[in-house]
Amino acid sequence: MIRASIVGATGLVGECLIRALLGHPQVKLALLVSESAAGKPIGEILPPLRGECDLTTVSAAPDEIARQSDVVFTAKKGTETFAVVPGLLKGGAKVIDIGGEFRFRDAAIYEQWYKETHACKDLLKDAVYGLPELFKEEIRHAKLVGNPGCYVTSAVLALAPFAAAGLLEDDGIVVDSYSGLSGAGRQFNTKQSNLFVDIDENLRAYGIGTHKHTPEIEMGLTRAAGKAMKVTFVPHLAPLDRGILTTAFARPKKDAGLTTAKATDLLREFYTPQRAPFVRVLNAVGDVAVSNVARNNYCDIAAQVVERTGQLVVASSLDNLVKGAAGQALQNMNLMFGLDETLGLKGRSL
Amino acid sequence: MIRASIVGATGLVGECLIRALLGHPQVKLALLVSESAAGKPIGEILPPLRGECDLTTVSAAPDEIARQSDVVFTAKKGTETFAVVPGLLKGGAKVIDIGGEFRFRDAAIYEQWYKETHACKDLLKDAVYGLPELFKEEIRHAKLVGNPGCYVTSAVLALAPFAAAGLLEDDGIVVDSYSGLSGAGRQFNTKQSNLFVDIDENLRAYGIGTHKHTPEIEMGLTRAAGKAMKVTFVPHLAPLDRGILTTAFARPKKDAGLTTAKATDLLREFYTPQRAPFVRVLNAVGDVAVSNVARNNYCDIAAQVVERTGQLVVASSLDNLVKGAAGQALQNMNLMFGLDETLGLKGRSL
Amino acid sequence: MIRASIVGATGLVGECLIRALLGHPQVKLALLVSESAAGKPIGEILPPLRGECDLTTVSAAPDEIARQSDVVFTAKKGTETFAVVPGLLKGGAKVIDIGGEFRFRDAAIYEQWYKETHACKDLLKDAVYGLPELFKEEIRHAKLVGNPGCYVTSAVLALAPFAAAGLLEDDGIVVDSYSGLSGAGRQFNTKQSNLFVDIDENLRAYGIGTHKHTPEIEMGLTRAAGKAMKVTFVPHLAPLDRGILTTAFARPKKDAGLTTAKATDLLREFYTPQRAPFVRVLNAVGDVAVSNVARNNYCDIAAQVVERTGQLVVASSLDNLVKGAAGQALQNMNLMFGLDETLGLKGRSL
Amino acid sequence: MIRASIVGATGLVGECLIRALLGHPQVKLALLVSESAAGKPIGEILPPLRGECDLTTVSAAPDEIARQSDVVFTAKKGTETFAVVPGLLKGGAKVIDIGGEFRFRDAAIYEQWYKETHACKDLLKDAVYGLPELFKEEIRHAKLVGNPGCYVTSAVLALAPFAAAGLLEDDGIVVDSYSGLSGAGRQFNTKQSNLFVDIDENLRAYGIGTHKHTPEIEMGLTRAAGKAMKVTFVPHLAPLDRGILTTAFARPKKDAGLTTAKATDLLREFYTPQRAPFVRVLNAVGDVAVSNVARNNYCDIAAQVVERTGQLVVASSLDNLVKGAAGQALQNMNLMFGLDETLGLKGRSL
Repeated sequence: MIRASIVGATGLVGECLIRALLGHPQVKLALLVSESAAGKPIGEILPPLRGECDLTTVSAAPDEIARQSDVVFTAKKGTETFAVVPGLLKGGAKVIDIGGEFRFRDAAIYEQWYKETHACKDLLKDAVYGLPELFKEEIRHAKLVGNPGCYVTSAVLALAPFAAAGLLEDDGIVVDSYSGLSGAGRQFNTKQSNLFVDIDENLRAYGIGTHKHTPEIEMGLTRAAGKAMKVTFVPHLAPLDRGILTTAFARPKKDAGLTTAKATDLLREFYTPQRAPFVRVLNAVGDVAVSNVARNNYCDIAAQVVERTGQLVVASSLDNLVKGAAGQALQNMNLMFGLDETLGLKGRSL
Repeated sequence: MIRASIVGATGLVGECLIRALLGHPQVKLALLVSESAAGKPIGEILPPLRGECDLTTVSAAPDEIARQSDVVFTAKKGTETFAVVPGLLKGGAKVIDIGGEFRFRDAAIYEQWYKETHACKDLLKDAVYGLPELFKEEIRHAKLVGNPGCYVTSAVLALAPFAAAGLLEDDGIVVDSYSGLSGAGRQFNTKQSNLFVDIDENLRAYGIGTHKHTPEIEMGLTRAAGKAMKVTFVPHLAPLDRGILTTAFARPKKDAGLTTAKATDLLREFYTPQRAPFVRVLNAVGDVAVSNVARNNYCDIAAQVVERTGQLVVASSLDNLVKGAAGQALQNMNLMFGLDETLGLKGRSL
Repeated sequence: MIRASIVGATGLVGECLIRALLGHPQVKLALLVSESAAGKPIGEILPPLRGECDLTTVSAAPDEIARQSDVVFTAKKGTETFAVVPGLLKGGAKVIDIGGEFRFRDAAIYEQWYKETHACKDLLKDAVYGLPELFKEEIRHAKLVGNPGCYVTSAVLALAPFAAAGLLEDDGIVVDSYSGLSGAGRQFNTKQSNLFVDIDENLRAYGIGTHKHTPEIEMGLTRAAGKAMKVTFVPHLAPLDRGILTTAFARPKKDAGLTTAKATDLLREFYTPQRAPFVRVLNAVGDVAVSNVARNNYCDIAAQVVERTGQLVVASSLDNLVKGAAGQALQNMNLMFGLDETLGLKGRSL
Repeated sequence: MIRASIVGATGLVGECLIRALLGHPQVKLALLVSESAAGKPIGEILPPLRGECDLTTVSAAPDEIARQSDVVFTAKKGTETFAVVPGLLKGGAKVIDIGGEFRFRDAAIYEQWYKETHACKDLLKDAVYGLPELFKEEIRHAKLVGNPGCYVTSAVLALAPFAAAGLLEDDGIVVDSYSGLSGAGRQFNTKQSNLFVDIDENLRAYGIGTHKHTPEIEMGLTRAAGKAMKVTFVPHLAPLDRGILTTAFARPKKDAGLTTAKATDLLREFYTPQRAPFVRVLNAVGDVAVSNVARNNYCDIAAQVVERTGQLVVASSLDNLVKGAAGQALQNMNLMFGLDETLGLKGRSL
């Protein structure tokens, strides 16, 4: 049994991750670390887990956590992450970081977009970007995985096959995404209200040109394409809890002769069941719906080339807490420990 | 007092229109025509109107309706519309049609996209497209107005100033829209479910490449630009009642030197208070929110040129039942009767 | 024209009240007082009002506010209310207080339930409880009105006719209410989360036995009955913005012979159009729905005596911001100034 | 492995049940029977199951279904249920019926409330009512289980301990419940609209005095109390997908000396972990929330005796599709096959 611990266990991602780990046949939940809530039964903090998990949250130093764990999921931000990851690795635990701290090899990108000094630059060269559909082999051998952002997973999975095939014009690539509020966490946000009265019956964009997932989407597509890719990324909030719907737009190269059928074939060839057991390629953009991926680890994708304009439209949808966070983290864990990628994820709702 | 009647009074648009007309200082509500519900007090059919409106729905022939009305709002579709409009006009009433039947001068476009034979082709040459921000003078002299589609109003108002200024590359123009469910009406839709359980906590696209508002958006932009414009239009459903948020994307011409500031100035110059008392140009795309336009007749618009990609992003939002239907119809009525365009619309919630 | 000002103009009730006053034919909006936001155009603070209201919020002393106002609506709490009301009255303005500070003649009740010292005890003897359906004559002559609580209005209007007729057993009266979140305001509430993620797809009770509206419901019913009445009041939160649905339960006295028909008649006789132009008595409990009263000033009520159990069930519904706050305040203003009670309220959506 | 089949597999309960069975360690899903959709892969009908379940729906006669199954879950109504259950039993399969057809021993009650002739009266004497917390031993030996109604489970679990202890006055017992829309299924309901536009931002009651769950609640409480019990049951619809919140009210007998502490103790003693592994007794009524039981098989319950009125308030919450339908059915299956009652249900989200 893999002993798995969570640092930052009491948030929305933490709850989802606890549930995922509890039901994983090869995992024993070890420590639920929370400095702020230490000493409380987890069921008091996260009432849906009453009766499901007997653990009490603890405060523990990195070396102690590492001693009791084979893998640690870190779900904190900035300095709190930097304070714990080196000790965990030193103590021999594998680490899957769900924040943004270990996604970029180039610390300068992190520092520019996250407005934060990167305190663990030396770890970046060995950190692996945890998008299994693109980087599975690297993940298998990783000790430190930077788990991708939720919007990023939806955007990169949608566009990577086309970018990799060199089919797209460079300019004018657009990622227009709508997310539910669980992506915003449970802290009150004074800049971008997440109160019910401000979200209910409302739709609005935010963070255009500044959202932290922007450079990460570009990194993913750049690696897929083998050349620099830029995107215009516009995230929005929609009145729902779970899920992201991304509608991506790109202009196919004139000579590419791309059609809906070819685009769909390309997706199917790229996302074989072996390479991508959690990507479901659908026949029609209108079949991609948040309700089909909510609480499971799938990312549904479909493409259409609009005949009158020639524009490529790719829709993708996933659950920001599952394939966009905890589920993908578990998928990465499976790979890092030589297990079937889908273990504890197929046939489950999280 | 203007005697105003409604044909098709019992739907969601009808309810909004009744409320609008009841509170208009120069209007007397004449006939509420409904073949299916004839003889019922309107408050029984539309319970929010109990105590607000004493009228009973009636069945009446066009000439009789015309005799009792100075203006008739028709909120039906296809053959039902064609059966009534000629008689209304012949009887001397002005007509504002809220369906799609009188929006296109070219009946062939209607027939292609609506899959319906146009039975009143001879009326099209005198029908005026009722988008006041673009065609105010024509509307003032119209006897028959085709009231614009809801998505169309949001899309054309967002992009027309840039199209008119010739600032955009022709290809790659994208209109990505999300709408609440009141746009779908109260009939159960077997193809595109509008049941609560299928909409709640869900987001999905529909009608890509086939939605009837596509050619109408292109018509509006083409008339604004003075040359043929094509757009890729992707409508989505979001779990809310009222409102549309459109995020439009276009690539500015390289030599246009467009910046966020210039784009915002352009919008402000185009939508002066005189020309467009119901367009509010905002400073930031993130300020455009459905909740700010719900139940009023405003369309909020903001633009941003994303520095890293050069892409133009224009957000617009309106209430599909108000500025997207009943409110705009009332605005058109005001113009057709020589009244202040904002009468009965400013300071009101519908 | 009545010069009307608002102290505490920038909250959800304030927004609703501004909209109501702007459209009132006999009112001129004078001052929008907000210490925290002073100097900002109201449209910046409340974006739906952009273009609707040119006023800028101000900071002003009570005597100055009174000098410029015939009536002042105070929408603050506790000490902030006590700091301003005496000066307003002294300066000659009439005051309609939307908080709980002037609802109880007995300061002890206020102090017990609100956990706050009452600093204006001397004003209580002349304060009038602003429920027009029960206390219209008193309101007409009032200089200071305590505007009723939202839950209270729904509960008292539902049960008062039966209490007044002496038809109910004293024990076992239950008021089970569900409210939308606008009742909770826009401040983040750490005890009772009002974040979207905690309200969406959720239902839960709160404040049983301690909610401040409990003694106010009892006061209303006690005054209606002419003898002490106690109720068990259970408020809940439901995932909607506007509206309260109250289901009240009581056991009719055995010898009362109450039936559904008699109960409905009783409601109709009690709530005549003259006495209660904003109460709509409906035929069936299932016809009472939040959607029918949202944004208008009506309270819909229906009663049923369940045959098998003999239990009386009364449903009532209103919009907590309108009939439960701003609309009722305007109704009170109309009465205090000798106007038609319905002026600026009928035919409007707020 | 238990071979389990479903008749009526394509509705909301069916989807939940398929997911539940797929993840059950001792179950092999055998046949998904659907006359209307026969021949389609289940993932086409229920898109969230794409990739999760390879089965294709079939049309099959009862004897054939029985031949391939150890247990059959029937999720149909009336004549469709009566047409299949006898053959299933005759063929040797155990049957868990999720409709209302086998809940009452007295066919007359069924016929009165369901307006349907009971065509299998002879089976009723051996049918067991499948509420494990009350009738576990009977269920263990049952061949035919009538799975309880969703509202009923919440109401009976809330009140049974008090009824069994003889603590309640007979009259004035009230069950006030709010349900999400998944309880209404996916068929358009013309009498009680389940369209998004009619449910969103709305609350309303329905079926007072006539809802089919009324006699079933009374049956459950009557069996618990050992004497006839009557309740006033008022179901409501609230704008959410999953979950029921029931607030039950009763007057304790004067001499019972019931307090909140005693009421809570009573619940804890009644619902021991052995007797009721899926009932969680909480300390405060305000802790009972739909969000804590959504998608799991728990029913959360808490009680409070309101000091000022002496009234007993009991809140209970469950997921109508899980503990109120598919989850409880699986719990019953576990008992019928001698398995741990919680197998495939603890640690899972459905």
